Amino acid sequence: MKSKTHYMTMQVPSRRGFVNITPDVARVVGESGVREGLVLVNAMHITASVFINDDERGLHHDYERWLETLAPHAPPSQYRHNDTGEDNADAHMKRQIMGREVVVAITDGQLDFGPWEQIFYGEFDGRRKKRVLIKVIGE
Amino acid sequence: MKSKTHYMTMQVPSRRGFVNITPDVARVVGESGVREGLVLVNAMHITASVFINDDERGLHHDYERWLETLAPHAPPSQYRHNDTGEDNADAHMKRQIMGREVVVAITDGQLDFGPWEQIFYGEFDGRRKKRVLIKVIGE
Amino acid sequence: MKSKTHYMTMQVPSRRGFVNITPDVARVVGESGVREGLVLVNAMHITASVFINDDERGLHHDYERWLETLAPHAPPSQYRHNDTGEDNADAHMKRQIMGREVVVAITDGQLDFGPWEQIFYGEFDGRRKKRVLIKVIGE
Repeated sequence: MKSKTHYMTMQVPSRRGFVNITPDVARVVGESGVREGLVLVNAMHITASVFINDDERGLHHDYERWLETLAPHAPPSQYRHNDTGEDNADAHMKRQIMGREVVVAITDGQLDFGPWEQIFYGEFDGRRKKRVLIKVIGE
Repeated sequence: MKSKTHYMTMQVPSRRGFVNITPDVARVVGESGVREGLVLVNAMHITASVFINDDERGLHHDYERWLETLAPHAPPSQYRHNDTGEDNADAHMKRQIMGREVVVAITDGQLDFGPWEQIFYGEFDGRRKKRVLIKVIGE
Repeated sequence: MKSKTHYMTMQVPSRRGFVNITPDVARVVGESGVREGLVLVNAMHITASVFINDDERGLHHDYERWLETLAPHAPPSQYRHNDTGEDNADAHMKRQIMGREVVVAITDGQLDFGPWEQIFYGEFDGRRKKRVLIKVIGE
């Protein structure tokens, strides 16, 4: 069995944002030498997500607005978590909707993707450094 | 390490629907010869889900109604994604709630399931061909 | 390839609750002898979740209230699933928001976690025995 571990630093300059990290994951898979296996990609912070969807600007706008409807940031005082001095309780909820991680098949040394699948980092409490973990296993 | 890759074509005749794919996944696991490992099952399209829950008609009705409350289809004009000519922005949201993929343990050559676990394909923008990926790894 | 399978019994005395199971998962990973690999942790019941987030009491209170807003328990008669004699349809929905499973990387024999990641069992229909599956693969 082969494996490869890669840590990727993310720094989104705004509170919320989506970043396409597919090329980074594809590069790590290529470097691993794994031909058949799985790659796990996960946010290492609990106010961020990794998810797979479409790289389309209108959709990202819709996600932003939709998540704000389901788990609004304001007023921060509505959340008991924010009594600790944080103002990011809503980010912990948005992350649950969008998910922590994806697991992607590797076939013939490539990400085994459908036509529109792209991997995104979803930031819900940015303006600071966070990390994404890419773990490849297989042979 | 052994591995097996299987692509399954799905064609749901209505816009939305749930299809129990547990027998298909169990068959692929059996064919793989893997006794201990993992199987990844994911939608290859970004307006569909793979998830695990109960095969109960009333529950599926409730999911349908509930998802429509959280991410309504109509009016399509409320979503910027639909400015591209699509009318499926809501499907991209429903898919995030229900998830893209499941990872299931294989123990003694079988899907290692609790009493009611069943694997479903969830379609949110059907009436066309899509694919599900089944990837088995282990030994 | 090495693997290890462990079943953990959960019994939450109230209808809903969150239990930190990180030490249990870490112990099973240690016992497996796997240095590089993946661990899958999933609820074996379909009205419970396994998820990763913060071990902070205020946040858990917020999750409880938020999930009740998105998928209210009462009145049970609003759900067709409950026509079967159950009163837990809402639990099947809460579980979809919070997720069935997590997959965590194992690096150098340890759970490869960011600073605040903790694994929780989320119960949405408790007061009875359920199980969590921990499956380690790697080498």
